[in-house]
Amino acid sequence: MDMLWSGWGDPAKAAPLPDAVTGLLRDLLGVKPRDTAPHALDEIPLSEPAPDPALRALADAVGGPAHVRTDAETRIRHTRGKSTPDLLKIRAGDAGDAPAAVVLPSTHDEVLAVLRACAEHGLAVVPFGGGTSVVGGLAPERSAFVALDLRRMNAMLAIDPVSRTATLQPGLRAPDAEALLAEYGFTLGHFPQSYEWATIGGFAAARSSGQASAGYGRFDEMVLGLTLATPEGTLDTGRAPRSAAGPDLRQLVLGSEGAFGVITSVTVRIRPLPRTRVYEGWRFASFEEGATALRRLAQDGPRPTVLRLSDETETFVGLAQPDAIGSAGAPAAAGCTAIAGYEGTEEETARRREEAAAVLRAAGGTYLGAEPGERWAHGRYSAPYLRDALLDAGAFAETLETATFWSRVPELYAAVRTALTETLTAAGTPPLVMCHISHVYENGASLYFTVVSAQGEDAVAHWAPAKEAANEAVLSAGGTISHHHGVGTDHRDWYLREAGPLGVEALRAVKRRLDPDDVLNPGILLPVD
Amino acid sequence: MDMLWSGWGDPAKAAPLPDAVTGLLRDLLGVKPRDTAPHALDEIPLSEPAPDPALRALADAVGGPAHVRTDAETRIRHTRGKSTPDLLKIRAGDAGDAPAAVVLPSTHDEVLAVLRACAEHGLAVVPFGGGTSVVGGLAPERSAFVALDLRRMNAMLAIDPVSRTATLQPGLRAPDAEALLAEYGFTLGHFPQSYEWATIGGFAAARSSGQASAGYGRFDEMVLGLTLATPEGTLDTGRAPRSAAGPDLRQLVLGSEGAFGVITSVTVRIRPLPRTRVYEGWRFASFEEGATALRRLAQDGPRPTVLRLSDETETFVGLAQPDAIGSAGAPAAAGCTAIAGYEGTEEETARRREEAAAVLRAAGGTYLGAEPGERWAHGRYSAPYLRDALLDAGAFAETLETATFWSRVPELYAAVRTALTETLTAAGTPPLVMCHISHVYENGASLYFTVVSAQGEDAVAHWAPAKEAANEAVLSAGGTISHHHGVGTDHRDWYLREAGPLGVEALRAVKRRLDPDDVLNPGILLPVD
Repeated sequence: MDMLWSGWGDPAKAAPLPDAVTGLLRDLLGVKPRDTAPHALDEIPLSEPAPDPALRALADAVGGPAHVRTDAETRIRHTRGKSTPDLLKIRAGDAGDAPAAVVLPSTHDEVLAVLRACAEHGLAVVPFGGGTSVVGGLAPERSAFVALDLRRMNAMLAIDPVSRTATLQPGLRAPDAEALLAEYGFTLGHFPQSYEWATIGGFAAARSSGQASAGYGRFDEMVLGLTLATPEGTLDTGRAPRSAAGPDLRQLVLGSEGAFGVITSVTVRIRPLPRTRVYEGWRFASFEEGATALRRLAQDGPRPTVLRLSDETETFVGLAQPDAIGSAGAPAAAGCTAIAGYEGTEEETARRREEAAAVLRAAGGTYLGAEPGERWAHGRYSAPYLRDALLDAGAFAETLETATFWSRVPELYAAVRTALTETLTAAGTPPLVMCHISHVYENGASLYFTVVSAQGEDAVAHWAPAKEAANEAVLSAGGTISHHHGVGTDHRDWYLREAGPLGVEALRAVKRRLDPDDVLNPGILLPVD
Repeated sequence: MDMLWSGWGDPAKAAPLPDAVTGLLRDLLGVKPRDTAPHALDEIPLSEPAPDPALRALADAVGGPAHVRTDAETRIRHTRGKSTPDLLKIRAGDAGDAPAAVVLPSTHDEVLAVLRACAEHGLAVVPFGGGTSVVGGLAPERSAFVALDLRRMNAMLAIDPVSRTATLQPGLRAPDAEALLAEYGFTLGHFPQSYEWATIGGFAAARSSGQASAGYGRFDEMVLGLTLATPEGTLDTGRAPRSAAGPDLRQLVLGSEGAFGVITSVTVRIRPLPRTRVYEGWRFASFEEGATALRRLAQDGPRPTVLRLSDETETFVGLAQPDAIGSAGAPAAAGCTAIAGYEGTEEETARRREEAAAVLRAAGGTYLGAEPGERWAHGRYSAPYLRDALLDAGAFAETLETATFWSRVPELYAAVRTALTETLTAAGTPPLVMCHISHVYENGASLYFTVVSAQGEDAVAHWAPAKEAANEAVLSAGGTISHHHGVGTDHRDWYLREAGPLGVEALRAVKRRLDPDDVLNPGILLPVD
């Protein structure tokens, strides 16, 4: 199934905003109904597709014209990603960043052939998995480009139950990967919010991190090997789980966001399917108290599989358990809600849960029972649907995220909140800024912010200064410009400052060597030379 | 204190071979006494030191001539590393790879100045920490080079007990780092065999892995940030514990072995000092049975802090507990000895130990009590002293190591053993080949081989074909050319094959950008252009 072109997910799952939320938007944020309905798909203007000689070369590369698409719908479905500005633009009928063609290779060699054909015909290439980028990772700074859709490369190539590894093709969607692994009793354990749509290749390219990262680790920690197709040939990495043979080339491919090559296979570590899953709610008096509790578990254990903490605002609004929003009694809670989840064998889960509960209690937590946890688990992939409904209602809603070391978390939290609040208030649309910690490490944590406000006259332009102020706050408070969304084009200028001039030069040197004609995702991650 | 120039460690700790071992060498391996005593240090011929203008420039770079040394002893002490061929050469009076000068900067800026001075005066630079490389990492392919000794940069720059991080200078030796951290109640937990002499910078440059890696992780997993001084300026990495902001540049510096720059600070994660340490012995009927037991713990836990398994030969010889060799009753044990160690709080350690014991028992293990564990712990840094004694006795002794995925461990084990045994037997010196697993991961393990044989006429040349055969076996059986020793010059040609042509080109591109004049460790890791 294809995703809703003008928003998120399965159109059948779209839900209107609960009345309670509509009232909140109106009374608290001054949101007024506006006509924000998407244009009709077939009325959206498009540039000319790629010229015929290029299309013929692409068809040759992928085994025939059936796998090269230039129809309007396919091109629009491959236009940009799923950030709020992306949605606002496409809803408004702006397909200015549409690919000149969409090509669907089925093998590594076909990917290599596509790269050659594009270099010959002056086309750039944007690798396209689930299309869920929220950082401008699918809109290169080149007008003539081809979207290289990896959906035909969706097989499990190998599984090694002894070593607990599996080799997966990049176009495999996460639920399909889980289904294939489940047949052997295994799971990958990677459940980001984009889970239902995102692909293995995308996870690797963007250094994804899932909601169960406390237990299963980040995606970059799961990857044991990668194959990369580049205009200059093939790069194969990962002969051993760990090695001292030079710099870890896997970590150069992970996070390269398609700028160095197209990931054509990923070998990942897999784990036994958990027998039990328990998610529970806890309440803390303050975000600081809750953060300290999470830190204790992250540093001294026992480590839950899922561990997250909403700040006071997110808790009050009910977004700590998105599924509960608008339902009787759920929102408007005091303090901060935390979710702790445990997955594993029954015995091990029970013990970990009991011990973690003791730590959380000692740190000031009040046990809320399983209901908040189950509500969170049930609604864990629904926030992007909620955003569509907010946009429909004339509100603006967007998220951004960062990470830093534990001792700097309070400063970073305050700096980003202040930046967003002040900028949007000064622009006449005082926002609701919510935050949660959703990924914890021994040495630090991520901070994930959700902003809701009234839309400005031009909603995209209205948001830009707030996002810019947040980015500046992230950098000056010592955070990373992205903990799991990636760089794309949206974060690029701040990323360059974070990596530093020489870091950027090192990456540029790699880029020039692997992609001398700048065919791959020009302007994404690194600026065009 | 300086290390013994002609061998390993503290000369006061040198010990003669036990008679039992001498008998074994003679009867089993045909080792004959030979005159292998080192030449006198002051009789070793040396090339001319660096010319005066270069020395003046170096003195300017490091705040005066007191920190630029050209005396014979200092130059000889900075000649090559501590591989067996290195020792054989220096014992034989061959200081052909001696640096033209030894320079001792005290700050990051002084390191930058040294790099500039060397580029101007046509000198290469070899960063020098503990001097413990066993892969030719200190003998560049350029005759005129300076050893950049980092011993003056041995401070702890910062400690953050909340985030549990510390920022350390590169010349800090591991025991000194532990002493500094212990004042705050923390440990790094990195205990490789070179522990007593090796430095923080060396650990990072060579992607070191310590004996407690099952509990504390590899050094590359401990590193959160690095500062690198290069001829083109400074590279600073690590704004957050984890990030999705592009490729992980830390992993490009880790394992770069001084070829990309000089590491001038390392931010590491630290952990609370353990309250308890328990090391115990287990016996398995076969290496395969033991390996399966280790795999179970690595995959499903509970994970001991130290976990190692000697094969039948190593167990029989007694090298599973080096401290026991030659003592009554210790060697000549049957089956395979494993050591499992636990460190942490008393309660947590006790439980982990009990649960791990159940797993080891279920996997066929027989509990041997604490004595073998304590013997192992007591002798854990003594193997290199034993090697000196073996060389003195006219024997040859060397180690090599690799890693692969669990399902390939048996094949890799057999391939390397066979390669070493056949090559040395054909050359007239049938060896004793011993092996242990000392690092376990969810997805695989390391294999560490020790070879003892009679010396050939020219011991260095005699060993070369065996080492080459072992390297070929490693690559063809799917292993990595090094799990924790690194690449240096010794493994380079095999490393190039492991990384693949395009991987090598990517690294070369980085090298050229950061070190355009090939000042840094020319020929180490990557061949000279």
